[in-house]
Amino acid sequence: MDRIYKELIALSESNMYPFHMPGHKRGKQDFVNPFEIDITEIDGFDNLHNASGILNEAMKNAARVYGADRSFFLVNGSTCGILAAIESVTKHGEKIIVARNCHKAVYHAIFLGELVPIYVVPDIIEGYSVSGGISSAKIDELLKNDKDIKAVFITSPTYDGVVSDVEAIANVVHKYGIPLIVDEAHGAHFKFSKEFPISALDLGADIVIQSLHKTLPSLTQTAILHIKSQYIDENSIETALNIFESSSPSYVFMASIDECIRYMQNEGQVKMVLFSKQLLEFRHNLSAVLKRGKFSLLDSEAIGLADIYSLDISKIIIGTFETNISGKELYDILVTEYDLQPEMSSENYVTLLTSIADTKEGFNKLEHAMADITEKYVKENAKACDDKSNNNLLAVRNINIPEIKCSIYSAMKSLKESIFIKDAIGRICAEFVYAYPPGIPIITPGEKISFEVAEMIYNFKRLQIGIEGLKDKKIQQIIVVKEG
Amino acid sequence: MDRIYKELIALSESNMYPFHMPGHKRGKQDFVNPFEIDITEIDGFDNLHNASGILNEAMKNAARVYGADRSFFLVNGSTCGILAAIESVTKHGEKIIVARNCHKAVYHAIFLGELVPIYVVPDIIEGYSVSGGISSAKIDELLKNDKDIKAVFITSPTYDGVVSDVEAIANVVHKYGIPLIVDEAHGAHFKFSKEFPISALDLGADIVIQSLHKTLPSLTQTAILHIKSQYIDENSIETALNIFESSSPSYVFMASIDECIRYMQNEGQVKMVLFSKQLLEFRHNLSAVLKRGKFSLLDSEAIGLADIYSLDISKIIIGTFETNISGKELYDILVTEYDLQPEMSSENYVTLLTSIADTKEGFNKLEHAMADITEKYVKENAKACDDKSNNNLLAVRNINIPEIKCSIYSAMKSLKESIFIKDAIGRICAEFVYAYPPGIPIITPGEKISFEVAEMIYNFKRLQIGIEGLKDKKIQQIIVVKEG
Repeated sequence: MDRIYKELIALSESNMYPFHMPGHKRGKQDFVNPFEIDITEIDGFDNLHNASGILNEAMKNAARVYGADRSFFLVNGSTCGILAAIESVTKHGEKIIVARNCHKAVYHAIFLGELVPIYVVPDIIEGYSVSGGISSAKIDELLKNDKDIKAVFITSPTYDGVVSDVEAIANVVHKYGIPLIVDEAHGAHFKFSKEFPISALDLGADIVIQSLHKTLPSLTQTAILHIKSQYIDENSIETALNIFESSSPSYVFMASIDECIRYMQNEGQVKMVLFSKQLLEFRHNLSAVLKRGKFSLLDSEAIGLADIYSLDISKIIIGTFETNISGKELYDILVTEYDLQPEMSSENYVTLLTSIADTKEGFNKLEHAMADITEKYVKENAKACDDKSNNNLLAVRNINIPEIKCSIYSAMKSLKESIFIKDAIGRICAEFVYAYPPGIPIITPGEKISFEVAEMIYNFKRLQIGIEGLKDKKIQQIIVVKEG
Repeated sequence: MDRIYKELIALSESNMYPFHMPGHKRGKQDFVNPFEIDITEIDGFDNLHNASGILNEAMKNAARVYGADRSFFLVNGSTCGILAAIESVTKHGEKIIVARNCHKAVYHAIFLGELVPIYVVPDIIEGYSVSGGISSAKIDELLKNDKDIKAVFITSPTYDGVVSDVEAIANVVHKYGIPLIVDEAHGAHFKFSKEFPISALDLGADIVIQSLHKTLPSLTQTAILHIKSQYIDENSIETALNIFESSSPSYVFMASIDECIRYMQNEGQVKMVLFSKQLLEFRHNLSAVLKRGKFSLLDSEAIGLADIYSLDISKIIIGTFETNISGKELYDILVTEYDLQPEMSSENYVTLLTSIADTKEGFNKLEHAMADITEKYVKENAKACDDKSNNNLLAVRNINIPEIKCSIYSAMKSLKESIFIKDAIGRICAEFVYAYPPGIPIITPGEKISFEVAEMIYNFKRLQIGIEGLKDKKIQQIIVVKEG
């Protein structure tokens, strides 16, 4: 194993085309050796945690661009924005509504604050098994029945590009006088073209957190938090960010954020129009190609769920569930035979991410690859998937919330033990177990392991597919709270 | 105000010599445009939060170099290491001994965990007004009287290079079966030369957190956490780091950390020997030069405090308290007339930081500048400082701990108001107020504002010197918990 730096250089010099994050797609920016511009807060430069000079100006500019009351640069990713947002709107032990399919940082915030989470669960999109949107009616119902809830947190768009009806949700939430926080980590580009969904910030969300590296040309780990609200105290957000971000924030990151936003407000606008046009054309062509091999492209037509407001077309999600190859197999073929690096795969689809930094050549390469693959691998007109061993598993991915026996905090901080899954029925879970897709916890710490949950985890573990978070690598084990 | 990036480029092209952090001193590294090597966890690369490949190898190598049981790369600075260390060894509401002169991240960890802090206060070094070392006897006394204390946290070396007797402290702390956490943010270089103090990790500390960018050639915001202990659960540290660090950690940072450590275990060793030799010679010469103008160099001889075990010679602290110019004035002269950028200044000294990346030319430049300055500015054999208006203020910098009325958490989360300092006597403070130097809070949230504290803050604010943290910029105001 060589040095990390050498491995990265080797990758950057390879022919592999990146259909994955970060959105800058490697090396398009005019940026020098980072050591040359890496400083701390010396004279003439500003302090992120009490900005009054050049950083303050840059953040004000970002707020103007996004139409926020206030914007904060984040050097510890969307992660620190999520932690700070939740910390600032709650006190220890209070209640918060969160979408069950939210990012792990939300669960971490619940842990830190010993919060009482009240979950809304999205429906699952058939075939792909990815999460749908969050229902405003379900949130209304929950808020009507409990006046102690302090905030609502949802993820929109999801990793898969599914956008909820944020406007409807914001209207409901504001009826009860509390704030809506939207994790828009995957939607920082929405603002810059009409072909993309409207940003949550323009639809009434009070705090919106966006990763800049995921879909725009900025360095990995850079993000931004926007406030536009009468329900949020800016000072308490600032205090909380001060906690969750380094006291020596990187000027390389802060310059990258500033450059990214200035690019998007200038030449980026035109590039974005070209990109959307190219993307629509590409999706049209790809869709036709895919159908020849029973592959499918996740698009608005493919979905029948009521709670989905829109889809982010920059996410190329190719379903394999009606073919005789798995998502993982398609992924491997793309990497090894076509030098195309997708973002990820599951059993039944492959995700490829596009951005403003993609090229016509990249799109063509992918289209030709898929044309070739449909020809070569699935020419005998693809079997249906009913002979696939994991079919039953996919069917059960509508996740129910287990009974909550104690807080995530108590469970994580208690004495734990690793036991056989078959012996764990009725016990309190002490770890997170995620189903992938849809990226929703099957169970979280503090929840009771039912027979159904135990069976699901056991089966997933046995097949070694679609499951994450289990610390004990032994197939039959799970970590639970020690009794007695 | 121009773009941040442009300002940084302009600085990097200036002639200003950097006697400040970061330790790489700009641009010595062989590093490409960061966008070329900036990726996320795709195939063949590793996941920091569950490392098993290239990152795991790199962290194992770091552990070998530092002699740790386990080392973790940190991409959110020492800040996240401090938060994670304290989170992992305490539960909400528990007690912890902390040195009152610790970093704000420690206070943040106390806030997050609603912890009960028990403070040890270092003595203050006369003239310079910087903190001395932490007394093992005081810690023993505190632990003897309270068996509910879960951990001890100290900073060594301090920002000013003062090293406590970590070995004695570790022995005391371990007698009570609890861990010692040492914030060694400013001492990552100790391991690499005999001319520097011994690292806390080799003296019995259980968790040691080091910034890599402060004194070694790595990018700002990079750090490392070491464990070497029978009292620490590695899994709970890992879980806590997972919370306080981005879920999209920067490969640019991780490569920088790896390169830094590999450099230090190879050619860095030789460079370090040369650096120490050069440094000792420089300090000898500088000391002679300074005495001609009644300036002084903070060194072992200059200190009479019992609790100081050692000093980090790489910190050049020039005292001005026996001259007729202030630290701030000396700082300004160095910047504007000599193109030398110090790290910081107070009323009575200037701090300049040196590292392995410094050059003979840099040292010469500083020596000649100081020779020139003693000649030009203080030739009439410098007045004593007893006619300086801030003398009384300096004298009162032996900080006492105010009465604690409620937790930092409760005070920060309560309704607050900004009132006249003269009306604040007897009220509960709702913000941090630091004296600089020595960088110790005069008061923290939850503590009662006594007449003495109010007077000290009022005087400092009026003179606009040596005080930080007050949110309300109006001279006579302080933020307190709202009553009733």
